[in-house]
Amino acid sequence: MTIDIAARLQINTGLAEKILVGFIADGVRKVGFQRAVIGLSGGLDSALSAYLTARALGPENVLVIRMPYAASSPSSMSDAQKVIDALGVQAVTIPITPYVAPFFERFEDMNDIRRGNVMARMRMIILYDQSAAFDGLVIGASNKTETLLGYTTLYGDSAAALQPIGDLYKTQVRQLAAALGVPRSIIDKAPSADLWTGQTDEGEIGYSYAELDRLLYLLVDERFTLEEAVSEGFARRMVEDVWRRVRASHYKRKPAPVAKISQRTIGHDFLYLRDWAG
Amino acid sequence: MTIDIAARLQINTGLAEKILVGFIADGVRKVGFQRAVIGLSGGLDSALSAYLTARALGPENVLVIRMPYAASSPSSMSDAQKVIDALGVQAVTIPITPYVAPFFERFEDMNDIRRGNVMARMRMIILYDQSAAFDGLVIGASNKTETLLGYTTLYGDSAAALQPIGDLYKTQVRQLAAALGVPRSIIDKAPSADLWTGQTDEGEIGYSYAELDRLLYLLVDERFTLEEAVSEGFARRMVEDVWRRVRASHYKRKPAPVAKISQRTIGHDFLYLRDWAG
Repeated sequence: MTIDIAARLQINTGLAEKILVGFIADGVRKVGFQRAVIGLSGGLDSALSAYLTARALGPENVLVIRMPYAASSPSSMSDAQKVIDALGVQAVTIPITPYVAPFFERFEDMNDIRRGNVMARMRMIILYDQSAAFDGLVIGASNKTETLLGYTTLYGDSAAALQPIGDLYKTQVRQLAAALGVPRSIIDKAPSADLWTGQTDEGEIGYSYAELDRLLYLLVDERFTLEEAVSEGFARRMVEDVWRRVRASHYKRKPAPVAKISQRTIGHDFLYLRDWAG
Repeated sequence: MTIDIAARLQINTGLAEKILVGFIADGVRKVGFQRAVIGLSGGLDSALSAYLTARALGPENVLVIRMPYAASSPSSMSDAQKVIDALGVQAVTIPITPYVAPFFERFEDMNDIRRGNVMARMRMIILYDQSAAFDGLVIGASNKTETLLGYTTLYGDSAAALQPIGDLYKTQVRQLAAALGVPRSIIDKAPSADLWTGQTDEGEIGYSYAELDRLLYLLVDERFTLEEAVSEGFARRMVEDVWRRVRASHYKRKPAPVAKISQRTIGHDFLYLRDWAG
């Protein structure tokens, strides 16, 4: 190894907290809001997002929503409850089963991927609808690892107004969560989309987050070529597979292209910052 | 008037057709697909999108989906049928009532806006799920007028892989639709999101598309200042109101911002074209 990747992946948690809390407070208030809504799955990413948002806006201005499915792990509900109790945020539970069941009945041949996407998108509908009722912005919980790999549902779990932890790899999410006092049971459990029983991210993706983060750090942050990553000791097959996933999922990270006809076109030369009105 | 806006809004329909058909064919095929899925509302925008897509990919490779709600106008279904018959595309009808009814029952206090957003997003879920089953890309039908005004549902009707008519103002959509032979009943009827009885776009927005397109053309395409638009004869109140809407809806046209922590961040300095993998 020519560089100490593990050391580079260590973040200054105090500084990261300060930056991310400021990002949320500023991002919410400059567009005229005071409040926020977060989907709380019981997993690590949404727990960290809730901790940061509660610090940014005050717990009374945060509504967390638990949206279990019939097959969700019961520990997801109890882990989410620990976050609610620790933060003192507002909370509501809206099971998605009544809304997704009619889909699954009508389209009996759906595989797990299609079912998982319907569930993730149904949660988006609830989250955005509740954000309108609560008058709050939706704060996302996508991390850098899953966003780069495209291990997300477009218009589903990735849908949000702000992405505070989108530049933290999963292993860095763990570091910051530990520093903020997120309960150990949440930090230590195997990451899972919890869409079906026994599902784990690492089982589905085929690599551990420890490996993925080290490789992605080299390819993305250090701009290593694939060959250079192989020289660092990563299996060629993994390097090529991971990079293929990053490229193939790029459409999820960009708005749909508009066919250019006029002299000024949305996304081509009609360009402003997202908070133009802020 | 210093410039002849009406003349500038006239498009060369033959050239526009060629460009947009090429955009669809190229956009679908270079990411490895041959087929497309389109939600067909019975309105003008989705009809034009279907015509263009059928020409780009061949009607056998296009699946159009009608997704009526209980309160949708019956003429929407029959107008959509005219498109299906004229093009010979594949078609399926999936009413959304069974999926949105449980929402409306649980959240009885929903206003029309919230209900409309739930319906638009439920149609997105169906469209994307069917696109997975059909192995086709979702082709959008958002026009430039509604996209600039933000008269769309985020993650709802605006969700698509490609936006072929996103650079055509509504009055230009009419021109191209007429040239392509879209049925007159569709071209001539009052544009409506058809979310509740009697709804029309122009009634809801408060201005006619003819006025909106002329003003937006000046402000966007010709980069007029608000004062210059007023000098051209537009009411100051309309100019300010329209421009406020354009700015306030810009978040719908951009991905959610990611808080920057690392030396290379998604959306900041990790930047590639959407079809990077293509």
